[in-house]
Amino acid sequence: MHASKYHINTLKEAPAEAEVKSHQLMTRAGMIRKAAGGIYTYMPMGLKVLRKIEAIVRDEMNKAGAIELLMPVVQPAELWVESGRWEQYGGELLRIKDRHNRDFVLQPTSEEVITDIARNEIHSWRQLPLNFYHIQTKFRDERRPRFGLMRGREFTMKDAYSFDRDEASAQASYDAMFEAYMRIFGRLGLEFRAVAADTGSIGGSRSHEFQVIADTGEDLIVYNPASPYAANLELAEAPCLIAERGPATENLAKTATPDAPKCEIVAEQLSRPLTDTVKCIVLATEVEGKPEETRIWLLLLRGDHELNEVKTGKLPGFENGYRFATEDEILETFGCIPGYLGPISPVKPITVIADRTVANMSNFICGANEQGYHYTGANWGRDLPEPQVSDLRNVIAGDPDPQGGNLALQRGIEVGHVFFLGDKYSKALGATFLEKDGKPAMLQMGCYGIGISRISAAAIEQNHDDKGIIWPLAIAPFEVVICPMGLQKSETVRNASEWLYQELQAAGVDVILDDRDTRPGIMFADWELIGVPLRITIGDRGLKDNVLEIQARRDDSAAKVPVEEALSHILDRLKSL
Amino acid sequence: MHASKYHINTLKEAPAEAEVKSHQLMTRAGMIRKAAGGIYTYMPMGLKVLRKIEAIVRDEMNKAGAIELLMPVVQPAELWVESGRWEQYGGELLRIKDRHNRDFVLQPTSEEVITDIARNEIHSWRQLPLNFYHIQTKFRDERRPRFGLMRGREFTMKDAYSFDRDEASAQASYDAMFEAYMRIFGRLGLEFRAVAADTGSIGGSRSHEFQVIADTGEDLIVYNPASPYAANLELAEAPCLIAERGPATENLAKTATPDAPKCEIVAEQLSRPLTDTVKCIVLATEVEGKPEETRIWLLLLRGDHELNEVKTGKLPGFENGYRFATEDEILETFGCIPGYLGPISPVKPITVIADRTVANMSNFICGANEQGYHYTGANWGRDLPEPQVSDLRNVIAGDPDPQGGNLALQRGIEVGHVFFLGDKYSKALGATFLEKDGKPAMLQMGCYGIGISRISAAAIEQNHDDKGIIWPLAIAPFEVVICPMGLQKSETVRNASEWLYQELQAAGVDVILDDRDTRPGIMFADWELIGVPLRITIGDRGLKDNVLEIQARRDDSAAKVPVEEALSHILDRLKSL
Repeated sequence: MHASKYHINTLKEAPAEAEVKSHQLMTRAGMIRKAAGGIYTYMPMGLKVLRKIEAIVRDEMNKAGAIELLMPVVQPAELWVESGRWEQYGGELLRIKDRHNRDFVLQPTSEEVITDIARNEIHSWRQLPLNFYHIQTKFRDERRPRFGLMRGREFTMKDAYSFDRDEASAQASYDAMFEAYMRIFGRLGLEFRAVAADTGSIGGSRSHEFQVIADTGEDLIVYNPASPYAANLELAEAPCLIAERGPATENLAKTATPDAPKCEIVAEQLSRPLTDTVKCIVLATEVEGKPEETRIWLLLLRGDHELNEVKTGKLPGFENGYRFATEDEILETFGCIPGYLGPISPVKPITVIADRTVANMSNFICGANEQGYHYTGANWGRDLPEPQVSDLRNVIAGDPDPQGGNLALQRGIEVGHVFFLGDKYSKALGATFLEKDGKPAMLQMGCYGIGISRISAAAIEQNHDDKGIIWPLAIAPFEVVICPMGLQKSETVRNASEWLYQELQAAGVDVILDDRDTRPGIMFADWELIGVPLRITIGDRGLKDNVLEIQARRDDSAAKVPVEEALSHILDRLKSL
Repeated sequence: MHASKYHINTLKEAPAEAEVKSHQLMTRAGMIRKAAGGIYTYMPMGLKVLRKIEAIVRDEMNKAGAIELLMPVVQPAELWVESGRWEQYGGELLRIKDRHNRDFVLQPTSEEVITDIARNEIHSWRQLPLNFYHIQTKFRDERRPRFGLMRGREFTMKDAYSFDRDEASAQASYDAMFEAYMRIFGRLGLEFRAVAADTGSIGGSRSHEFQVIADTGEDLIVYNPASPYAANLELAEAPCLIAERGPATENLAKTATPDAPKCEIVAEQLSRPLTDTVKCIVLATEVEGKPEETRIWLLLLRGDHELNEVKTGKLPGFENGYRFATEDEILETFGCIPGYLGPISPVKPITVIADRTVANMSNFICGANEQGYHYTGANWGRDLPEPQVSDLRNVIAGDPDPQGGNLALQRGIEVGHVFFLGDKYSKALGATFLEKDGKPAMLQMGCYGIGISRISAAAIEQNHDDKGIIWPLAIAPFEVVICPMGLQKSETVRNASEWLYQELQAAGVDVILDDRDTRPGIMFADWELIGVPLRITIGDRGLKDNVLEIQARRDDSAAKVPVEEALSHILDRLKSL
């Protein structure tokens, strides 16, 4: 490609609304242009990145035996009603009506359509296993779209769906996809981690997320630097930090703690470590239409720990969701305002659930259910009944890993997700097949997503500097840019540039020759912003000494290379990037 | 690809609603599955066809210097309001609302978005010419979607938009696209014709359609077998069939023509040729909100000719559209019911427009504005004033071409369309650039569409037989199928089949090996239905004689070829397909 025949339009300033680096840099580099909130045009170089990501994903999906098809963007509501998601899905599902007032959705995902296809196409165990995927435009009507391609409304996703005879075979399909994902993210050239994850609204019983490591990521990953263990903070099991409960050596004593509605303040007032305090969280569960069945729960965490809301949502009795209790409910239950609550003698009976660590604490400090007072020296069994025990908290850095070593935390951007669905959708839509014995059986499913457009943004969040983007070679819009100095004036420079351009093209390198009439400073700044991995500078001064300059985007300085060695040097350098 | 690892599911019967061959055959061959009316899933082989078409289109667009980008499916209404099409476009434009009740459209075409991009991206004449294209999902909310991919609601289209400094440069861009389209449809292996066409609702001043020739096509093409001339019937100029008006030799006579409201019956009653009669068409034009400005027009055609509604719409005074006059309007104007109307002495004064041929008729027959009576011997100038003259009729087969020879008619399916837009959209959206002299000038535009998914259907309408589809090689889901006879039982057959499969793959042939456990009759029928261009049959009997069988889909019988010559024979045969 010659730049003069291409469209390059970099911007000095990012739009004010662009909060994250990838949004700023993709806009400044001219890779995306906003059409509406969360809806973008992929400009030529942005589309090239997208296509390179797609090609790697497609190649590995095909190698893993998945079969590509293409399901529609506009899907009939009937199937979503059948699966129950027409009701369950929130405002992010864009529901539309056609000219005949019939209901449709703009697909955010395609479980319903593929299961409908499966129930019509799959008749016999002989056809199984099958894995269908497509790479298609999705729509998710975010309430407040922002962060550019990190969380757009219209986006490109690869979603695959496996169909198997039984759970063992479905697990094998899941494992094959897991391995394919490892290869995909490896080939993309990104630092990533596969982490055990919650199944969320997709449902199913097992799942892993593929997270691109980046400080700006929205997700927190718990991992063990010394082992392969990694899990999303939502799911990561928090160990009990006290191996055995110590003896009750202190007496229970009500102590004045004026203006101390937080554990940190109480610990300070009493000159005790924060780890001696217990935090109270009051929750309510209710049954729709039955206010008399509203139930109040008291969850206890050590003062330095945080509640994990996903784990909470999985507690027995919390199946229909939960909320934080209102101040009225708290007053009525504890006879006290928040800040001084505790598990000892509330006004009304209540179910107490203690985090594993809290359950092994002794001589602990908790609210006295009286404004301005806390108990010290509280002990299970002696001062209050033994609690129900559960893992309620988020892991914190340094927590011991039961398998050895200590856990650490890092931030990540979710770019892939694999789910073991079981028969959730096949049951809802009645997708059965005939087993060898002639009897109908339910298809076992898995689903596997990769956020194609989000990967382009995640790659930038992970790889950028003050000058701009630093693309991994595999997904760079161009692999090499040739920057001639004064091509318009010097025939020598023009000829050398065109020669190298032809040679690189012939060698299969994705190269662009910047033949625009631009000053070197602007030219270099453009390509540093755009983030092309390797830049070749060709000028009269160098050519006099028979050399040209090679500089990788991450390099501090350029290497001078004899012209006749340039091609092999560039090809070698590309291999090392 | 091995068939056992793929998904092949042919059907004996097409769905009852499938009216056209392509819809029936694509469904039966398992290439598409219906998700909703006019909305389909492209099954694996259907998608392969689509991708091959896309690849050819993309390659030729790139070679012609067009730059690929990707505009969104969901587009903000604001831009459509700005262009005026939010109001003008009919019910086919699917208008939707997001969760915040903001208006959007599902794009049927992208003039607005690309012009918005152009006005922001193009600042200087130095950037021009530019041609952007994308291959994207479109939506057109057809009132009654049918004919499968021939006229779907959700479909894939390539649309390109050129931007130029002036009309001459824009014409060069148009011509370059025209040539690229000639190469594209040539490479697709389809019999096609580029025809001059009307610009319709897209607007602009010049356009050509690319029509795939097929008896089932909706469009009528006028062409000259002896010259390159071809035009859509809508646009094709109809010659005057009477070089010079003959003398008035008959007297005007009112003649009884009872129960003869049609020219054919009048001619029969009077024993005169149909070509002596004149047909009356009464139209009305009106100005919205001004009923007093409704105007009645009388259009005259020779008895054997048909009105061309597109030409009519372009008559001076018809700029705001027209309609057929109501029976009340006709009675009021002519004092007579339809069937006996004529241009001589209507009750009210009226503008008469005669088709070119009618204007040169003499001694003609027309209604007498009295029920049951016609005039014979009518002559212009003597019996009624000279009319306004225009080309009003459709060409009919055999009409002389003014350039020599005679015109013929054939049916076609429109699969591509190029438009010279001028400044229609750049003016509406204010898309200007700075000319060399520093003054702002309006961008000159062209737009260029190709119906990717429709091509797959058109190819079938043109190429099929009783057994199924006959794909042109370039867009066949597979180029070659290997059909082993009894692969499950014979190791010799299995080894020979696998060997040939590997050899063909290594030679870059898109080959599928049918290793399913299927009876030969079913296997052959499947591949004839699917329409793979070349079939290789390998069986124990042939292998004993060291031969295998090669049969092209269009061949009546198979050729026996020695095994060691098979590869070169197949490669040669593919070249000739």
